[in-house]
Amino acid sequence: MARVVVDVMLKPEILDPQGKAVHGALPRLGFEGVVDVRQGKRFELELDGELTEERLHEVNRIAGTLLSNPVIEDFSVHVPQDAR
Amino acid sequence: MARVVVDVMLKPEILDPQGKAVHGALPRLGFEGVVDVRQGKRFELELDGELTEERLHEVNRIAGTLLSNPVIEDFSVHVPQDAR
Repeated sequence: MARVVVDVMLKPEILDPQGKAVHGALPRLGFEGVVDVRQGKRFELELDGELTEERLHEVNRIAGTLLSNPVIEDFSVHVPQDAR
Repeated sequence: MARVVVDVMLKPEILDPQGKAVHGALPRLGFEGVVDVRQGKRFELELDGELTEERLHEVNRIAGTLLSNPVIEDFSVHVPQDAR
């Protein structure tokens, strides 16, 4: 078993209304000093077997086709430190 | 300026229909060997000034009140390695 994480965030130049909504709520809740908030998605994929280069390459293909929209989103694939 | 990341995932015992939908789509797209998918949220917070213990504590309070629902979600706060 291996766990791989895919983070998907809107590209910096794309407006992020969810992040803006969170940002706008912070002062009303008494939190100061947050300049910007961006909201994205996090996927945790559990793979069977060993984590090989080939499997990671496949996860990159999954991330680029199913998990993100490459026109407006960037993704990053990483293996969490506590992964088995 | 400092960047802090908050990851919010459904607790393991909570059903995750979004993750299940992604998981179900993988074989149809030709991707095999993924045993489970969980989908959560990732927030990137840009703070002004230095990142102190106190600021991190405040981000933890933001994460536990505004960014997550503690009844069904777990969150983790971390500072990305490339943070300024």
